[in-house]
Amino acid sequence: MAVGLSEPVNILPVAGIELASVACGIKSDGRDDLVLFKIDPGSSCAATFTKNAFSAAPVVLAKKHLTQSPPRALLINSGNANAGTGEQGLQDAVQSCEWVARAIQCNPEEVLPLSTGVIGEPMPMDVLDSGVKLVSQQLSTDNWMAAAQGIMTTDTVAKAISKQITISGKLITITGISKGSGMICPNMATMLAFIGTDAKVENSYLQQCLDNAVAKSFNSITVDSDTSTNDACILMASGASETPLIKADSADATTFSQAVDEVCLHLAQSIVRDGEGATKFVSVNVVTAASLSEARDVAYTIAHSPLVKTALFASDPNWGRILAAVGRAGIENLVLEDVSLYLDDVCIVSGGCRDAAYTEEAGQKVMDQSEITIKVALGRGDISTTVWTTDLSHDYVTINSDYRS
Amino acid sequence: MAVGLSEPVNILPVAGIELASVACGIKSDGRDDLVLFKIDPGSSCAATFTKNAFSAAPVVLAKKHLTQSPPRALLINSGNANAGTGEQGLQDAVQSCEWVARAIQCNPEEVLPLSTGVIGEPMPMDVLDSGVKLVSQQLSTDNWMAAAQGIMTTDTVAKAISKQITISGKLITITGISKGSGMICPNMATMLAFIGTDAKVENSYLQQCLDNAVAKSFNSITVDSDTSTNDACILMASGASETPLIKADSADATTFSQAVDEVCLHLAQSIVRDGEGATKFVSVNVVTAASLSEARDVAYTIAHSPLVKTALFASDPNWGRILAAVGRAGIENLVLEDVSLYLDDVCIVSGGCRDAAYTEEAGQKVMDQSEITIKVALGRGDISTTVWTTDLSHDYVTINSDYRS
Repeated sequence: MAVGLSEPVNILPVAGIELASVACGIKSDGRDDLVLFKIDPGSSCAATFTKNAFSAAPVVLAKKHLTQSPPRALLINSGNANAGTGEQGLQDAVQSCEWVARAIQCNPEEVLPLSTGVIGEPMPMDVLDSGVKLVSQQLSTDNWMAAAQGIMTTDTVAKAISKQITISGKLITITGISKGSGMICPNMATMLAFIGTDAKVENSYLQQCLDNAVAKSFNSITVDSDTSTNDACILMASGASETPLIKADSADATTFSQAVDEVCLHLAQSIVRDGEGATKFVSVNVVTAASLSEARDVAYTIAHSPLVKTALFASDPNWGRILAAVGRAGIENLVLEDVSLYLDDVCIVSGGCRDAAYTEEAGQKVMDQSEITIKVALGRGDISTTVWTTDLSHDYVTINSDYRS
Repeated sequence: MAVGLSEPVNILPVAGIELASVACGIKSDGRDDLVLFKIDPGSSCAATFTKNAFSAAPVVLAKKHLTQSPPRALLINSGNANAGTGEQGLQDAVQSCEWVARAIQCNPEEVLPLSTGVIGEPMPMDVLDSGVKLVSQQLSTDNWMAAAQGIMTTDTVAKAISKQITISGKLITITGISKGSGMICPNMATMLAFIGTDAKVENSYLQQCLDNAVAKSFNSITVDSDTSTNDACILMASGASETPLIKADSADATTFSQAVDEVCLHLAQSIVRDGEGATKFVSVNVVTAASLSEARDVAYTIAHSPLVKTALFASDPNWGRILAAVGRAGIENLVLEDVSLYLDDVCIVSGGCRDAAYTEEAGQKVMDQSEITIKVALGRGDISTTVWTTDLSHDYVTINSDYRS
């Protein structure tokens, strides 16, 4: 069902980062459910996490560990969120880090635990113990595609991308994977993303690159407005390419940050394209806003509206629903007569009512596409933004009323 | 499909208020689509309207007329919203008031136009002209049930209630009708409600009663988080009972305001019970909050969550989704360990994790009911609130992807 998304190809290894994926029995259906990253000493690492007030135990512990030392390993399970599990959940997360530390010879504080899956169930610690032993014996730099599959839950297609850029005359690689399909909204929704590079990057600049990229990618998507308890995006830079250190004032800084932007945008859009039940990939583009805040409020009000989303599912150019969503976005002193509305390049509304040149046929032609841009011009300033979303289909209801997530 | 809602019975006429409903051809399927209320001279009238920035033309005109003189008539069409129709839409609304004024011998400024239906289509003025003539010839005090049917769009059951109270030893009647099923959210969603009484009530106190009642009823419900462009609730008091004038300091003021509260709550809950595709009627009760604002934020985040709503449709006690919604409601310094979660009287979460006494069987038993209360205790203060909502079913998607509303 994914919209314009096929299996990734040409996914490249990253020197200095080994990984592996196994099925250890956390998922009941035998699919891979445990992924381990091992990162070379001396690497830098940046991270962003969910803003849900009820962070899962592994998120709490990962944040703490990041303040203690640069990570040497990430342990990701995709069968159990370890969220809403109280003190026992935290102890279980600590225990899993100890097992990884023992297996790959590092300190427990150098392990970041991450997870996605069912909320509120106790962690099956016995299978995790043997799983950590198994996965730590299969590490290789060339397992990114296996890992992309190993972190999937309701995803239907693995999500991965590699990009190569030249830094100081040397080719460096950036490879990233992500997962996510439902419970997807800004501020790190139910999604995980792991990006590795062999560039050598100063830690504070790496974090700055990630924060900027995430704002324009993972924090600009929504499938169903629900922000999960577990989400994380981790960017690792091994430095194995032995290029000069990239800092904010380096000549190559922009080349590197743009590449990170592109990787994050591809991975984030892939999540929307594989949104639960999605039949449309929709860009909501708000222009001539007075502020970024109001641009995002309008874009998200449209992107979250069940009535807009069901009209998209029906391929119905029902622009009244879009206009009603703009009107209820809470923008002070919004003047209807200044607002214009477009489907792709077709102007539907101008001057407060249906554009004189608009025809239902022209709107229908755009709506029949699987990829659509809704553009709203507010006529209040020069700020613009884009968020990406899906339609709301029968399959979304089926997936979320059949699957205990 | 409506949950616990059957055809209204014992709907009483209100002296001083005549009404009628006809099919004039605005709806294509031959159902009634035009309702006229005629109100005795000397009546008082209170009103609340949608907060959508893009109010429909009739809403704009009705607000203007209310500042000019007490209304003598309401003209409601349920086939065309006359929203997103620009200057022509406003002219059409003015014209329709002139037709009513001519038919019942009043001034055009004494007519309030109201409408619901398709957004963005021009008004079919020719059929409206003959419709006004027809409906004005059929006025009677005993047509409330016909009017309740005449204002329906995707509603499956007519919504009406009568209540009688004693004021200064005399029996007075309050009768109300409402419509609404989709595009329902607080701040006057796609709903219309008309309430009449033969009590004699001072205008400013009547408005106060209505504002208070609406806050706790129509503005505390959501089906699908979409606020429409057209909504209105009108409370008319004819004074035909010849009871003493009710003012804020009258002995009977509380008796009257409580009766208005009850009528509004019944009409608002009826809209939720008849929510598009609804299979559950859900009360979301937030207690021990620090403020009404945070209580409503938590309640609405739960009530709007597609994941919570699909779990309700599946009768799945998937409390992780409810907890995740509480966590993303944007409450500062929310402490997970202080939060408790109940389905009816069954405690699911306490102290940050699954309650020790909780069993899946107990949760399932509540979820299997068609009427469910989700209670969240935040442990932060003594404020509580309740909002009412539905589940999200396949039928919701079907209705909104088949019906051009």
